[in-house]
Amino acid sequence: MIECIPNFSEGRREDVIAAIGAAVAEVPGATLLDTSADADHNRSVITFAGPAEAVAEAAFQAVRRAAELIDMTQHSGQHPRVGATDVLPFVPLRGATLEQCVAIARAVGQRIGDELGIPVYLYEAAATRPERAALPNLRRGEYEGLREAIGSDPARAPDFGPARMGTAGATIVGARQPLIAYNIYLNTADVEVAKRIAKAVRGSSGGLRGVRALGMLVEGRAQVSMNLIDFRTTPIHRVVEMVAREAAAYGALVAESELVGLIPEDALLDAARFYLRLHGMADDQILERRLRDRS
Amino acid sequence: MIECIPNFSEGRREDVIAAIGAAVAEVPGATLLDTSADADHNRSVITFAGPAEAVAEAAFQAVRRAAELIDMTQHSGQHPRVGATDVLPFVPLRGATLEQCVAIARAVGQRIGDELGIPVYLYEAAATRPERAALPNLRRGEYEGLREAIGSDPARAPDFGPARMGTAGATIVGARQPLIAYNIYLNTADVEVAKRIAKAVRGSSGGLRGVRALGMLVEGRAQVSMNLIDFRTTPIHRVVEMVAREAAAYGALVAESELVGLIPEDALLDAARFYLRLHGMADDQILERRLRDRS
Repeated sequence: MIECIPNFSEGRREDVIAAIGAAVAEVPGATLLDTSADADHNRSVITFAGPAEAVAEAAFQAVRRAAELIDMTQHSGQHPRVGATDVLPFVPLRGATLEQCVAIARAVGQRIGDELGIPVYLYEAAATRPERAALPNLRRGEYEGLREAIGSDPARAPDFGPARMGTAGATIVGARQPLIAYNIYLNTADVEVAKRIAKAVRGSSGGLRGVRALGMLVEGRAQVSMNLIDFRTTPIHRVVEMVAREAAAYGALVAESELVGLIPEDALLDAARFYLRLHGMADDQILERRLRDRS
Repeated sequence: MIECIPNFSEGRREDVIAAIGAAVAEVPGATLLDTSADADHNRSVITFAGPAEAVAEAAFQAVRRAAELIDMTQHSGQHPRVGATDVLPFVPLRGATLEQCVAIARAVGQRIGDELGIPVYLYEAAATRPERAALPNLRRGEYEGLREAIGSDPARAPDFGPARMGTAGATIVGARQPLIAYNIYLNTADVEVAKRIAKAVRGSSGGLRGVRALGMLVEGRAQVSMNLIDFRTTPIHRVVEMVAREAAAYGALVAESELVGLIPEDALLDAARFYLRLHGMADDQILERRLRDRS
């Protein structure tokens, strides 16, 4: 099973967002999981999943539909963007690997370039050079700036497709691990505590490698807002324990936490295994998994 | 989905156990999950699951096959028993209720009585009177004693089938919640500590209602051996936290734990939700569940 979470540069016209979702749902085997739109960002995120071939086909059809319906010369919004389908990441679910997702990203990227004439940049695990791994480098100058640079600056030549941009702009295609958006609320209104904890736990400032974190105030409560970018190497239980430990140093406690969007089941099962000390538990001791595997 | 975990009075003749398993597997929709045999007890346990109709049919076919192949007049073993199919419990899995399992137990019990001429006693949630809820009451005197009493003692009249026993004996049919066999090892060889903790946590001596517990020494380590009989009302995380708290009073720690057999996925997800403080998490935020529900 593969998951795909494309971001589109349309967050206001509901009929356009629905039409892109329909392009996904029309592909047999592809299952639409979620659609969310942000009017300020003028951007929407569609989540779908299924077997590799179905997801690859649905991704291509969604990009095609978005290119027909979104004109980047008319687009504005707060979020940086370069194309109608701005980012197209493929994510391995249970039974799939990151390498498979890299292969899918490259195949779909090539098809978008060849058949739709849209310039494609490969990013994260699918990147063709280190400086293209991170999104901000690829989005530099956004749609308007890239349109000027793409034909003249060799460093900005696309991986697939023509070195010129039409109204659909460019699409950034890649592969990454599932991302978990996990926020922890503290029993304090002191946002400074949340900021210090965020600094302690995030990888960029010396904390846990797989964690991005910010401290903020949400509805009067201090919140450590995090993205866990690789739960298999930096598991969620290690994160919540570290936050709780740091909070205690300021006399604060974890009040509750929340997920924004979806979480892979394995991330929760790993946490249960850790806290219940089930160090030797086999996956096929979980009744429903055995039932699924044998029926 | 319904689970069924019948116990058969044969733990030595592998061909007989395999033939009973085959009777289950031959029913479309019924999935065989596990078979385990104990030669000392001369007893085996077969676990299968599926939609209600398939499980009811497979249970009946297993009882019929066991009645053909097992002669209780020739049976001996350490475990108390009254019939070839000794106990036949139906258990609700996700999406099913205990009430549905009671209805299935009564329907299958009636069929066993009517079509196979085997006396049937209903137990646990399916029991027709309070004193029949617990297995030991129903097994009093075992096969040999019940064969004498069944025709003469009105208190021992079966719920279905004739008030006389043939070579297949009697079968005890019922409905219960999933049972989790969960053992916790302490970092001590002092079995007295395990015994005191077991006494503190088990319901019968004042502890948690849904817990049966014994303290024992296993390979040089003190073990609290438990059955959790209703994980939805007495969740596994409350049990391990209480064991850890009691152990600390003796200067001991939980070293690891183990499951004997299978565990429902929900029991692990409830633990993750508790420890990660995801108090508001919806089930459909779990990616694989949403995928299953929508595809």
